[in-house]
Amino acid sequence: MDRIEWVIANCRLLAAIGAELERTRPFAGLTIGTGIHLEPKTVALLLTLRRGGADLVSTGNLNTTQADAVAYLRERGVRVVGGPTADPAEHAANLREVAAARPQLLLDNGGDLFARYLEEPWDGLLGGTEETTSGRMRLEPLRDRLGLPLLVINDSPIKQFAENEHAVGQSVLESFLRLTNKSTDGKRVTVFGYGACGRGVAANFRNAYAIVSVVDADPVKRLQALLDGFLVPDRADALRTADVVITVTGGRDVVTADDEPLLKDGAVLANAGHFPFELDAAGLEAGGRVTVLESGHMVNLAGPRPLGNSIESMDLGFALQTRCLEAVATGAVGAEACVVPVPRAIDEQVAAAFVATA
Amino acid sequence: MDRIEWVIANCRLLAAIGAELERTRPFAGLTIGTGIHLEPKTVALLLTLRRGGADLVSTGNLNTTQADAVAYLRERGVRVVGGPTADPAEHAANLREVAAARPQLLLDNGGDLFARYLEEPWDGLLGGTEETTSGRMRLEPLRDRLGLPLLVINDSPIKQFAENEHAVGQSVLESFLRLTNKSTDGKRVTVFGYGACGRGVAANFRNAYAIVSVVDADPVKRLQALLDGFLVPDRADALRTADVVITVTGGRDVVTADDEPLLKDGAVLANAGHFPFELDAAGLEAGGRVTVLESGHMVNLAGPRPLGNSIESMDLGFALQTRCLEAVATGAVGAEACVVPVPRAIDEQVAAAFVATA
Amino acid sequence: MDRIEWVIANCRLLAAIGAELERTRPFAGLTIGTGIHLEPKTVALLLTLRRGGADLVSTGNLNTTQADAVAYLRERGVRVVGGPTADPAEHAANLREVAAARPQLLLDNGGDLFARYLEEPWDGLLGGTEETTSGRMRLEPLRDRLGLPLLVINDSPIKQFAENEHAVGQSVLESFLRLTNKSTDGKRVTVFGYGACGRGVAANFRNAYAIVSVVDADPVKRLQALLDGFLVPDRADALRTADVVITVTGGRDVVTADDEPLLKDGAVLANAGHFPFELDAAGLEAGGRVTVLESGHMVNLAGPRPLGNSIESMDLGFALQTRCLEAVATGAVGAEACVVPVPRAIDEQVAAAFVATA
Amino acid sequence: MDRIEWVIANCRLLAAIGAELERTRPFAGLTIGTGIHLEPKTVALLLTLRRGGADLVSTGNLNTTQADAVAYLRERGVRVVGGPTADPAEHAANLREVAAARPQLLLDNGGDLFARYLEEPWDGLLGGTEETTSGRMRLEPLRDRLGLPLLVINDSPIKQFAENEHAVGQSVLESFLRLTNKSTDGKRVTVFGYGACGRGVAANFRNAYAIVSVVDADPVKRLQALLDGFLVPDRADALRTADVVITVTGGRDVVTADDEPLLKDGAVLANAGHFPFELDAAGLEAGGRVTVLESGHMVNLAGPRPLGNSIESMDLGFALQTRCLEAVATGAVGAEACVVPVPRAIDEQVAAAFVATA
Repeated sequence: MDRIEWVIANCRLLAAIGAELERTRPFAGLTIGTGIHLEPKTVALLLTLRRGGADLVSTGNLNTTQADAVAYLRERGVRVVGGPTADPAEHAANLREVAAARPQLLLDNGGDLFARYLEEPWDGLLGGTEETTSGRMRLEPLRDRLGLPLLVINDSPIKQFAENEHAVGQSVLESFLRLTNKSTDGKRVTVFGYGACGRGVAANFRNAYAIVSVVDADPVKRLQALLDGFLVPDRADALRTADVVITVTGGRDVVTADDEPLLKDGAVLANAGHFPFELDAAGLEAGGRVTVLESGHMVNLAGPRPLGNSIESMDLGFALQTRCLEAVATGAVGAEACVVPVPRAIDEQVAAAFVATA
Repeated sequence: MDRIEWVIANCRLLAAIGAELERTRPFAGLTIGTGIHLEPKTVALLLTLRRGGADLVSTGNLNTTQADAVAYLRERGVRVVGGPTADPAEHAANLREVAAARPQLLLDNGGDLFARYLEEPWDGLLGGTEETTSGRMRLEPLRDRLGLPLLVINDSPIKQFAENEHAVGQSVLESFLRLTNKSTDGKRVTVFGYGACGRGVAANFRNAYAIVSVVDADPVKRLQALLDGFLVPDRADALRTADVVITVTGGRDVVTADDEPLLKDGAVLANAGHFPFELDAAGLEAGGRVTVLESGHMVNLAGPRPLGNSIESMDLGFALQTRCLEAVATGAVGAEACVVPVPRAIDEQVAAAFVATA
Repeated sequence: MDRIEWVIANCRLLAAIGAELERTRPFAGLTIGTGIHLEPKTVALLLTLRRGGADLVSTGNLNTTQADAVAYLRERGVRVVGGPTADPAEHAANLREVAAARPQLLLDNGGDLFARYLEEPWDGLLGGTEETTSGRMRLEPLRDRLGLPLLVINDSPIKQFAENEHAVGQSVLESFLRLTNKSTDGKRVTVFGYGACGRGVAANFRNAYAIVSVVDADPVKRLQALLDGFLVPDRADALRTADVVITVTGGRDVVTADDEPLLKDGAVLANAGHFPFELDAAGLEAGGRVTVLESGHMVNLAGPRPLGNSIESMDLGFALQTRCLEAVATGAVGAEACVVPVPRAIDEQVAAAFVATA
Repeated sequence: MDRIEWVIANCRLLAAIGAELERTRPFAGLTIGTGIHLEPKTVALLLTLRRGGADLVSTGNLNTTQADAVAYLRERGVRVVGGPTADPAEHAANLREVAAARPQLLLDNGGDLFARYLEEPWDGLLGGTEETTSGRMRLEPLRDRLGLPLLVINDSPIKQFAENEHAVGQSVLESFLRLTNKSTDGKRVTVFGYGACGRGVAANFRNAYAIVSVVDADPVKRLQALLDGFLVPDRADALRTADVVITVTGGRDVVTADDEPLLKDGAVLANAGHFPFELDAAGLEAGGRVTVLESGHMVNLAGPRPLGNSIESMDLGFALQTRCLEAVATGAVGAEACVVPVPRAIDEQVAAAFVATA
């Protein structure tokens, strides 16, 4: 079975929702415009929306579009605008083309499509969803101008524990093993950042028989890490003792060339935060003593055969997406729900469905 | 070393704060009225407040006052009103006597003292603290009438993870072992409730080599429990398979005589929730097949040699208490802070102090 | 239910074996002489042997006989020689009195009864069992003189993992909590010794959110501990960083007054090895800075309400005892089986029975 | 850094031993004949032996020789006989060519080279090592004819815990994640076999938040698995409930087409045992309902980017190899050590070296 078919077959929530939507057709006569990563898991999402009657007009994000995913969608009649590109101007043109289709629903990622709508509004937009926290922060100040139901997926508690804690934690461990062929048994691992992602990373490495230290600027999080059974040395000691360093803070310049003298010979560093500027890869590696995996790019999406988060965690997130778009399409949520979290009833519906099939 | 001395010696945060308060004397000239459990850990708290210059007028709660704790305080000149009592009328009289001292600060537990103040206000009350969530819920509607700084300790994130999750979880495991001399290895354990306490209980039993099932009415919590690696069978299966059942929901009649036929011969049930009505002990035990530990009273405070939560968790909570009372006494928080959580700066100060001495 | 009844009710293997032995009566007409700790769990064992038709003549060990256990047995017609005693001469006289009954089977503990038999042999001894490794080491050189089936219980793999690793590990954790009311969360714990008991202690404390260091003279065990996820600092560092020290080596003078200057203020030390000379309690506590729990006596059998190993682990061990005595009584093992481990078939029978009722 | 260089750089024990052997030259003037997998980790081993003065004459095993490893060795002047082959006749010819070089030492894998020596002995063979348990079983009956020091690496306790338990366990988890992109959180995983490898697999999946059941024909192992906190249902239930099945028994036909009706839709099966006949892949997949990863070949050596066991575990094993060959070369062990485990002193030396650099 090829990878896309495998992913579709294992997105069980989407499969069940798709079967239901073929009967209920909530998106019949509606166009959904999307601007999300185009890879196997989003293929499963888009095809589910189409089973509900939607016309789709889709484009990808900068740098992440996978050609075989685009081909797979086009073979099945989904309109995909553009292809893989690293050119911001080309990407912007693609987004404009999506907007030009005047979709009734938007499935946005980072607020790009809603921002474009405000620049050149069109008639008939019912609302939609925004995937990310950064998109939410961009759209919140625009609430009064938007005046449409707009549900933010990442604020669901399900995303916090299923994706940020569990899926990222396991994925970073898997990537460390995949990229290094090194063991974690008895290794000293230092994790920078003890938010949901950092907790997951720390727990997954501890469970893999590493001795984990946590560094976080917030003393309340340091206390939590300590009571959770992690060492909480000061920053310099945490670097000095580390065989492995993982950053997952969201901040910049977490470990830099200035820190290099503190590190052990042969230390391995990796970044699990979204942006590739937590580690100064060039500076750290200049001395030839330590290794920064994949130049500090998000380690679970980089290097040979990166898989990203698990199918199940994406299935959960995309089930929330689909149910939220359904709620907007059917009028179950109104304009008062503008840039708000996933409604509690949808969280419960999706959670119950996952548990029932587990 | 006797138990009270041992507890005082191991409340390291309070010891350090007490040494500081002897220099700064924030409570000089002030009376603090308290109505809290009187046992070894609260002795450490009260003596710390006195090191800061406070006059104390203290009474206990219904049923929980320990005579040796009262004696220890009185020997050191602390005014304790009343003694151990199970009589509500006697307890009410004790609270009235505390109020009659017209304290400038109140350290309340359940809102009793602040409620009394509203009935018969006195001059000079600066504000105070409330320990519990139930007290917060009682006092919130009275905010306009109170108009004083009143900080709610239990809403601190530190209380949530240090006490509700970690300390309760470990304490319930310890109590099961202490009361039964049974092993947890390979036992099927069912936990009702997956809030902070339930998560701690489930994790502590799993870590003790039990196979744990979780029952919670909320599907989002069931999903979280599943991804955390617990079984989430339906309620009947969860009872049928259980060697051990722990309730920690806060609700009533969680497992009753009607469920008894589902249970295995020799099943052991225990309640870890605050109130003794989660388990129908009499009904469950009537058939002589199963055992309800300590008649369903909070298992970590019942039976021979109950120890309650760990010294460290209480030290953290009482450090928050002391710093909050200091903030009220010194005017660092004003009337706008009426029935609000512990200020973030105090959470950080206490967390940093604990980590520094760990 | 009183403690002895509770223990008997929860020794499920013994209950089932007892029911079978009432039918098969393998010990009919035979006297079994025993010299084992007399406490609730051995009561369950002795009464099971009697259900199989045995006459019993029993005495205890030095210091450990519990008066209520003796009373309980006598009320049920079991002949108990002597009572609680700390006098070696009195104990020796008790053993002589057991031997004087000329039992056909011996259930020995430490080799005392078989040694006495060799001093003054009597007719009709069929053989028996020895509980301990130290008894095995005493009896091995006497094989030629004994020439009887004599099965050593402690060499069973079941004893190694069920009792030495799991039961001791959990019991030491429980005892630390019971005796100190301190938390293990985030504590630095150093375990001396990484045999089966030490592995269990280290794992139980790590699972209770401690950060555990292991010290063992054998580098192969240090490597194993490291790969199992424990720190393996040198001895001095392991003492310097420890909040808690547990010895379980079987050796003498593991931590002494000479080490006291290395220890943190407030460090807590405990011994989990059989003999009370691993820790120099007096020397260590002389400076008033650290605490040795229960003067270095085996921590899970000392202090208020000590419970020892779990009922289940003792039930397993005593099921092995009973089946081994049955095999000797019925001639299923012969004189070639002199000072040898439990026969594999009995290990399998007992294991299968436990799993079937789990 | 390319993969071979990365592996060499991370084989720290071999690097340190190599530096020592360059001074001591124990293999000066000696030829070592080898027949082992030729891949990056064995490259590190062979180059270490050469640093000790050895001439090498090496061939690979059936199916596993990697061309880039051969090229890397040849570029550095190591004599490699033959290349990748799946032809038994060609492989046999390669082995004969190694023997024809009349090496003084043999590093054997499966007993092939020693068996050939007995067929056509040559002068000057000092002895050598055998890597595997199956090789030991083949050579044991030949002890009298061999009459040479011959040390069996896999019988070292270090191999048991470092490789069979820890490295295989982690590697199988990594392979499941790599091949499926599925999560383990909350999954029901059934492990067949609870030897050292099975214990490692079960523990690694449990630590990754799966709920693990164990099936083993031996009731003592079932009991051990139960007390270790795993479910031990009967075989049919273990198959019925499984989302994932892992076999690691060493036996044949562990799960076959006959079992297919028991399995859930979408179940994933994988084999972690050495031989590809534990799972009847064709029969199981015929119905199109379940997936057998990589046709039942050893999952951690199959599929895209298989990495096998961790570098550290191989470094440990190859350090034992090198030290054992050194002991044979220098006469530290004599003919009495024919088909015996690694000498205790070497286990200790290698363990101490690993811990010192950890």
